[in-house]
Amino acid sequence: MLYITDINRLRCNGIKVGKNGLGVVVCSGNVAGVFTQNAFRAPPVVVTEEHIKKGWIEGIIVNSGNANAFTGKQGIRNAKRMCELLARELKTDVERIAVASTGVIGVQLDMDWIESKFVEVYKGLGSSKDHAMAFAKSIMTTDSFPKIASCEVDGCKIAGVCKGAGMIHPNMATMLAFIFTNADFSSEELKETLKTAVKYSFNTISVDGDTSTNDMVLLVATGESRIGKDKFLEGLKSVCLNLAKQIVRDGEGATKVLKVEILNAREEDQALKGARAVVSSNLVKTAVFGCDPNWGRIIAVLGYAGIEVNEELDLTLRGYRNGELLREVRLVENGVGLGNEGVARMVMESADEVHFVIDLKLGNGKGYAYGCDLSYEYVRINSEYTS
Amino acid sequence: MLYITDINRLRCNGIKVGKNGLGVVVCSGNVAGVFTQNAFRAPPVVVTEEHIKKGWIEGIIVNSGNANAFTGKQGIRNAKRMCELLARELKTDVERIAVASTGVIGVQLDMDWIESKFVEVYKGLGSSKDHAMAFAKSIMTTDSFPKIASCEVDGCKIAGVCKGAGMIHPNMATMLAFIFTNADFSSEELKETLKTAVKYSFNTISVDGDTSTNDMVLLVATGESRIGKDKFLEGLKSVCLNLAKQIVRDGEGATKVLKVEILNAREEDQALKGARAVVSSNLVKTAVFGCDPNWGRIIAVLGYAGIEVNEELDLTLRGYRNGELLREVRLVENGVGLGNEGVARMVMESADEVHFVIDLKLGNGKGYAYGCDLSYEYVRINSEYTS
Repeated sequence: MLYITDINRLRCNGIKVGKNGLGVVVCSGNVAGVFTQNAFRAPPVVVTEEHIKKGWIEGIIVNSGNANAFTGKQGIRNAKRMCELLARELKTDVERIAVASTGVIGVQLDMDWIESKFVEVYKGLGSSKDHAMAFAKSIMTTDSFPKIASCEVDGCKIAGVCKGAGMIHPNMATMLAFIFTNADFSSEELKETLKTAVKYSFNTISVDGDTSTNDMVLLVATGESRIGKDKFLEGLKSVCLNLAKQIVRDGEGATKVLKVEILNAREEDQALKGARAVVSSNLVKTAVFGCDPNWGRIIAVLGYAGIEVNEELDLTLRGYRNGELLREVRLVENGVGLGNEGVARMVMESADEVHFVIDLKLGNGKGYAYGCDLSYEYVRINSEYTS
Repeated sequence: MLYITDINRLRCNGIKVGKNGLGVVVCSGNVAGVFTQNAFRAPPVVVTEEHIKKGWIEGIIVNSGNANAFTGKQGIRNAKRMCELLARELKTDVERIAVASTGVIGVQLDMDWIESKFVEVYKGLGSSKDHAMAFAKSIMTTDSFPKIASCEVDGCKIAGVCKGAGMIHPNMATMLAFIFTNADFSSEELKETLKTAVKYSFNTISVDGDTSTNDMVLLVATGESRIGKDKFLEGLKSVCLNLAKQIVRDGEGATKVLKVEILNAREEDQALKGARAVVSSNLVKTAVFGCDPNWGRIIAVLGYAGIEVNEELDLTLRGYRNGELLREVRLVENGVGLGNEGVARMVMESADEVHFVIDLKLGNGKGYAYGCDLSYEYVRINSEYTS
């Protein structure tokens, strides 16, 4: 297991005091980012997208507990001020710093708190595993565990940290991810690779355009290791998918991970769209919570997902526990229910991960999406969030 | 209060045995219908849409407990067989009968049960208020009360019955509505009027294209009363909106009705789209359940709703109890939060209906949508539905 502090020269730290946190990463490198498509883009998103245009950053500052979103011009000033705090210490230009925020919307940042905690966090910067975990913890909100992932391919290291747990309703979960690598790519190359990696990872747990005000994925490359582009993409994809699946596993109140895979759709985009629609359905999510193999609800979602469908489809359930397949149960074959709900229910009861595989028999488009079930606990968490 | 049996010559009846019900209406008239846009249209939808093409029906037969959806050719044969049962008794053509179903998807109808109960229901047909209520009750599924509404304008009577209660996630709720009037319009005129009335009523609680496999609204006009088209449309709209609001009030597990109104959007369709997005958000719904005036969640939804937005918006909360306004609280003015969350929370705690009014200050598009909160009870109902 690598930590972000295993990427050469990277130092970081973070603190969490009640609901509020502050984290700092110091790392020079080429940078690329993917940002929310929400029309109300939060000030830190606006500022960071502007700052990384030059393709190089020296550090990142992140706060949790307050999203600095819908905060107008004061919000922009505060986001820039956060960058200044770090830039001053690093003796670099303010535009060399990225900033991110996550938490409640519509409240101005408590800059006194941030400035005073910054001194403490900055003083404590370091390169140990503990420093990496302190940063990972400082950016958490409703997350129940810090989320890290890494891989090493041909001497190229990739290590990432992310936060996000509101994945029952992916539209609204602020998802922040910071990924570091010692690979040697230009910011243009990084951008292209990151976009592809995000499409098959974070975007399979979140619908395009249905993003929070603050979502952000940053990739920083320090440029020491030569590696082929394709190999790098594979590594980056695996780190991103690992992080994305941790978000799903930590879905607010979730008891089971849900994966929907669509095979042989007319084309890939239709498979991805259909799979996302199914994992987003409250009726499917509550059925999974209740271990109810109610495949009629899946059919109904496919019918309104806006994709080409085929009544002669096959639908199969797979139950997993601790990553091991318990059993595969065919529920529908050539459009006919097989009456296997009894067995399917037993499999669901034992499983911590439920997969539905739908074969549309139309073309060769393939796609998947991850989600989780909808429980009493989700309602509790989200009805009490700001209280 | 009028009942459907107050429309001249109408006879009806219905029974409910456990989860299964059967209802019959005998009424001759010009007919128009609006049907689900789900790609998997259930056999009764396919059959009824075909049958009403000639513009005239003699009766309607409806079963609840089984949607006869995703049931293939056998499903089509069974839907036609239901029509035959009634056609034979009425000595009319099978194509003069409409059929509707609601309930579980993917299971063939128990035709023996339907045929034996049909005899009983048909024998008991009548024109009293009790007969009208028996029909209204026979089509219920998770509904906790029968839903009827009516109005009388210049001697023209309009009376309707509907069912539907899954409105937390409107996409999946089967909504059936049967409206009868003594007005004198051609089926073409009825169709045009019905489409407009549905747009401002049932469609404000359900997203276009996001419909169940079985949704259907039928309008039958017996042709005795002359009334102007505009007056008729107003009456029909009010009956439809009354029924639609009853569905929302009966939302599975709902404790509060939620209305979102958007003023001064760029255009009407954007206002309708934005309002629907807000009432469909799990995070807004859980916040309303928890009496949490978390307006940041509303802002975030508007941001991903795919409409033109304006950061300088106003956002106002209104709490109602038993139809009476308790208090109006401005939460955001010109894009700035006013810190009135404390008062707003108290209003929400006392209210059984919560309205959010958003002024976008962009154009003169106006639109609203109705929904309800998301409670523990919703999760319970939907995780146990088929068990």
